[in-house]
Amino acid sequence: MKVGFQGVTGAYSEQAARQYFKASKSAIVLKPCADFESVFKAVNAGTVQYAVVPIENSLAGSIHENYDYLRQHPVWICGEYKLHIDHCLIARPGSRLAKIRRVYSHPQALSQCAGYIKDLGAEPCPYFDTAGSARFIGEAGESDMAAIASSQAAKDYQLRILARSIQDEPSNYTRFVVIKRQTKSTPALTWRGPSKTSIVFSLRNAPGGLHKVLSVFAIRDIDLTKIESRPLRGSPWRYLFYLDIEGHVSHPALKRALGHLEEITHHLKILGSYQAMDK
Amino acid sequence: MKVGFQGVTGAYSEQAARQYFKASKSAIVLKPCADFESVFKAVNAGTVQYAVVPIENSLAGSIHENYDYLRQHPVWICGEYKLHIDHCLIARPGSRLAKIRRVYSHPQALSQCAGYIKDLGAEPCPYFDTAGSARFIGEAGESDMAAIASSQAAKDYQLRILARSIQDEPSNYTRFVVIKRQTKSTPALTWRGPSKTSIVFSLRNAPGGLHKVLSVFAIRDIDLTKIESRPLRGSPWRYLFYLDIEGHVSHPALKRALGHLEEITHHLKILGSYQAMDK
Repeated sequence: MKVGFQGVTGAYSEQAARQYFKASKSAIVLKPCADFESVFKAVNAGTVQYAVVPIENSLAGSIHENYDYLRQHPVWICGEYKLHIDHCLIARPGSRLAKIRRVYSHPQALSQCAGYIKDLGAEPCPYFDTAGSARFIGEAGESDMAAIASSQAAKDYQLRILARSIQDEPSNYTRFVVIKRQTKSTPALTWRGPSKTSIVFSLRNAPGGLHKVLSVFAIRDIDLTKIESRPLRGSPWRYLFYLDIEGHVSHPALKRALGHLEEITHHLKILGSYQAMDK
Repeated sequence: MKVGFQGVTGAYSEQAARQYFKASKSAIVLKPCADFESVFKAVNAGTVQYAVVPIENSLAGSIHENYDYLRQHPVWICGEYKLHIDHCLIARPGSRLAKIRRVYSHPQALSQCAGYIKDLGAEPCPYFDTAGSARFIGEAGESDMAAIASSQAAKDYQLRILARSIQDEPSNYTRFVVIKRQTKSTPALTWRGPSKTSIVFSLRNAPGGLHKVLSVFAIRDIDLTKIESRPLRGSPWRYLFYLDIEGHVSHPALKRALGHLEEITHHLKILGSYQAMDK
């Protein structure tokens, strides 16, 4: 079974994919993709059966690009995974912490470790992605250079971990969604325990529209776990709303709520229904 | 009167600042700042009396970094301005459109003109900002290089406009907010016509919280124009919500709604109250 992810070997997405499918005891082959859009295209083309993409980080917020792709591509969210992001300072074997002057990584990772880099007296240097920055400093080969990436990236590129858990805020999680190609049939509920359903919709042009939508859930005691808005292209200052709702799409109350929602929204698309991961 | 903005001469923020203060017939001196945080710091330090910062684009969505700064710094939103973003292809005098092979600009602007760049057969090259890319190609001085920036940037750096309105989607607007240092007193309503109030809050840890908040406004027929969520640092999967509400903070109904909101939210901060710009 082939699973796509964005980035290079050692990426956090790869780690999330491994851990997610390990729990389900599935043997997988991981396929790196250059960018997020390529991941979605690979799922649609059938080059990969599944893909794992980051959707939000508990410090930096949503990865809005992926919200847009979830709506534009005929994919279905069939799972989620929350990965604890534990950044390591990585350098070539033989490097010493005291000698590090330049630290390379994705701007997001640099900003999550800003305090640490400052204390080290080093200069933050932006790079395309975390695992890629590890590969880069391995190849560049200068002893004053380090990268911020996962411990897995250090292993993959035969580099040395100079320091672990260097993020300024320890509680740093990224939530990933597992996607597959959309099929016509509604999935049956195949697990016990908490589920989640993700939807996207636009409102009719009338006041109080969003309040009405939330009422549809509130009057049925269905809770929301996330709301996100994105601009509606071609209609300045109008929005698409993404909601994560507790419950599975096959639950009677949620089914009725979604039917009710169709009465009051403009476009409504169900993005997926899946087992919720706690914590 | 000094007004801060992020970027270099010729930036869209500078253009928004000029047009906003021109309408109010105020003579201003514009102060460029290196990054958004410096703009907020300059307002707090009193180095500038006002600043103009972008808050959302009708195609790309919110500039989340600035939402965070609005909450963290003691500033007050006292106005808004919606600027039509009209991108030009800019090159050195003597350059010819047919010879352009590399197009430099902010990644956002490159993506807004992706179709045009592709038709031209040129390569998109990311740069820090739009006006900065115009300055850069002027200095680099190669005849196959162009930048995407405002017509004002072409004028400021004595460059030539090879093509106008090159964005793929013509309806491309950026909404800016005008900020000043926060004072203790609630501003009096000094204009007729539509107003807006911006707030940020977090919810108590109880189900249906967001629905209750929207009800506070819905039962008073107060409409929302925008909702945005940002992660609450240190509390994974909990959020801060930013709302733009119709009406001025001095209107009795809105005053009561905000009082009501204090009963049901955790932290509530009023970010500003100002004249709404239509379209």
